[in-house]
Amino acid sequence: MKMTQLEAARDGIVTPEAMTIAERERIAEEQLRESVARGRVVIPFNPNHSPSRPVGIGEGLSIKVNANLGTSPEVCDLELEIEKLEAAIEAGADTVMDLSTGGDLEKVRREVLSRSAVPVGTVPIYQAGVEVVRRGQSIVDMEAEFLFDVIESHAEDGADFITVHCGMTRKALERLEEQGRVMGVVSRGGAFLSCWMRARGEENPLYEQFPRLLEIARKHDVTLSLGDALRPGCVADATDRAQLEELLTLGELVQAARESGVQVMVEGPGHMPLNQIAANVQIEKSACDGAPFYVLGPLVTDVAPGYDHLVSAIGGAVAGLAGADFLCYVTPAEHLGLPSAADVREGVIAARIAGHAVDICRGVPGAAEWDRRMSVARKRLDWAKQIEMSISPQRASEVLASRSPGLEEGGCTMCGEFCAYRMAPASKAR
Amino acid sequence: MKMTQLEAARDGIVTPEAMTIAERERIAEEQLRESVARGRVVIPFNPNHSPSRPVGIGEGLSIKVNANLGTSPEVCDLELEIEKLEAAIEAGADTVMDLSTGGDLEKVRREVLSRSAVPVGTVPIYQAGVEVVRRGQSIVDMEAEFLFDVIESHAEDGADFITVHCGMTRKALERLEEQGRVMGVVSRGGAFLSCWMRARGEENPLYEQFPRLLEIARKHDVTLSLGDALRPGCVADATDRAQLEELLTLGELVQAARESGVQVMVEGPGHMPLNQIAANVQIEKSACDGAPFYVLGPLVTDVAPGYDHLVSAIGGAVAGLAGADFLCYVTPAEHLGLPSAADVREGVIAARIAGHAVDICRGVPGAAEWDRRMSVARKRLDWAKQIEMSISPQRASEVLASRSPGLEEGGCTMCGEFCAYRMAPASKAR
Repeated sequence: MKMTQLEAARDGIVTPEAMTIAERERIAEEQLRESVARGRVVIPFNPNHSPSRPVGIGEGLSIKVNANLGTSPEVCDLELEIEKLEAAIEAGADTVMDLSTGGDLEKVRREVLSRSAVPVGTVPIYQAGVEVVRRGQSIVDMEAEFLFDVIESHAEDGADFITVHCGMTRKALERLEEQGRVMGVVSRGGAFLSCWMRARGEENPLYEQFPRLLEIARKHDVTLSLGDALRPGCVADATDRAQLEELLTLGELVQAARESGVQVMVEGPGHMPLNQIAANVQIEKSACDGAPFYVLGPLVTDVAPGYDHLVSAIGGAVAGLAGADFLCYVTPAEHLGLPSAADVREGVIAARIAGHAVDICRGVPGAAEWDRRMSVARKRLDWAKQIEMSISPQRASEVLASRSPGLEEGGCTMCGEFCAYRMAPASKAR
Repeated sequence: MKMTQLEAARDGIVTPEAMTIAERERIAEEQLRESVARGRVVIPFNPNHSPSRPVGIGEGLSIKVNANLGTSPEVCDLELEIEKLEAAIEAGADTVMDLSTGGDLEKVRREVLSRSAVPVGTVPIYQAGVEVVRRGQSIVDMEAEFLFDVIESHAEDGADFITVHCGMTRKALERLEEQGRVMGVVSRGGAFLSCWMRARGEENPLYEQFPRLLEIARKHDVTLSLGDALRPGCVADATDRAQLEELLTLGELVQAARESGVQVMVEGPGHMPLNQIAANVQIEKSACDGAPFYVLGPLVTDVAPGYDHLVSAIGGAVAGLAGADFLCYVTPAEHLGLPSAADVREGVIAARIAGHAVDICRGVPGAAEWDRRMSVARKRLDWAKQIEMSISPQRASEVLASRSPGLEEGGCTMCGEFCAYRMAPASKAR
């Protein structure tokens, strides 16, 4: 039986994927191997998919960005999904997730997997829930057996990582009910499961049968992304006892997963006031023994629909600075509708800007150097070079062309003859 | 002779402007009066302008946002300036600055002042420099007398605050030369002055004749915004000795200004790595005895032209959390050209989002409540209310209409029948 990346690293083996990653990140292979062996870095790489651009996520590496894709019952168009996938990868997403709930779910997933050069994540419970409902039943009728069958099919199809909401126990739901919330449960998988658990009075099968999940994950080296079903859905609900209860359970599951040779990361909020982000990251890092932290946003205010990519760039940067490793993008369409391909692009760029700002501080090889080279080009009024070095050359050249038509190389677009760069040459170059 | 807001506050007087501000900020008049008396809050309010919407800037108040306007030698169109002014105010800017360097500078300034309900700032040295050059002379030929005349004319016209680069001393320039930089001096006023100082071998007249400046400022109650001529122009140059040398001098000038009854705030970077922002704010607060801190950005990376509004929203939020009080917006056109009215709008909204995210944490009355009310509307799928409560109802409704056409009240735009809000009603309302 094949080893997982975690098992290989523990055995002292530097896998081909680890070699590729170490080279791209400009770190020593041995350093990476050790981080994978300790579970501080995951390499979501299901051999059934074998993404051509493997990524490492975690301590000591550059921040990674995920783009969520997927159909809904209302918007279900395979071509649009492919367009969004291509937009995400072109804009620089490190991974994508297929969150489809509309149309032929298997077909969409397989198409995304076959076309994606980057690791693909899925959320099997969506398919399980959707199929139960399509049969005319209620989500409450979903059998645990069926859920595990769906999980296995995702693993066999090649999902590199899957979100599994294993930490929402009956105890956590009790804490939620005891306490109350403005928004309740906003995670879709969490909503499925909490309905199920409440109606049946049973424990979460993903928690109860965690060893079974580990078996599937180990077999196909699917990285588990432990979902935060009880993440806050608004700033007012942040960092409450229900959320923290779930996080403690996730820490225990991290330990169990690692003991079974399964790669694991932890998902986090969501919506949080700016001044609670650092604490949330630190708690995850301590309670989950440094497992890679995958945050959704976080969104630092609820009042800016249409700008949630920007809102989450603020939160993502602050989370990254505090130690988060993996940013799930948020698009300008969040809270308003499903994203277009253009929204996907904006979402990826916004999250990459946040990640890069953190990479500079983390001392990621090459990060500060990129800014320095841009600054030299800027000082020289070298426009071609500035465009080329932009995180989005397309956007930069569009803005330049429309706001400063007729610009010549060496010309100043803002101050004309009163250009500070020309008036005061850099003293000693630094 | 009329008293300044600072002098009045020291005399135990709550001015009409302070009353308006205290009511809007929902704080006690006496608390505001005390903060103004200590110089922790400024009220830029030149009686010659008497803006109808006075603002307080500083400790204990909500974060304020400034929008820079102004012509250049290349783009000089009074109508466009008025359009930008209106866009800025409509988008919620608390103040505007007229940074014009093209066309009839007096006419533009007076027009902006007469139409602006919010306080207006200017940078007199731009006009002084531009007029000298228009006479066919070089910036080096500018006489100090003339510079002070221009400053006086701005004060008489009603400028509520003026940027004066008083802290760039010969000593600071020596430190700059000793050390070297990638970008040198990027402040335009700083570039004018450093050319002048280097060519003439003389001390900065705004430093040397600071008492004369204080006299003008006191007479018209012009708030001094002590400019950071040596602010870093790129991430690589951040927090260097030249910048810090200037900041120490600014701290001394803050003290002198307060002693003369003149309101004063301090300007700050600029470009900074994310992990240096908190230190910069703390140093300003300690070295300048809690003077209101007015930051430009800060931009946390140089590589995202076209997205600098987003980049500075990240920096502004982190600066605000650390204690900065006043955010100068940055538009998507920054580093590429002069902003259009649409860019102005985007810049203001981005800075307001950052400011609001901080206001939630500062405990600003009403800030968290805004988010909570939005969240309740969201939970209820009440779309009309969500739009109404958005920071930009226009943007939110545009995105909603284009991504989710045919939406009905109570419908879910993202998950349709699998909507988490509908599946899992909030347990106990909180």
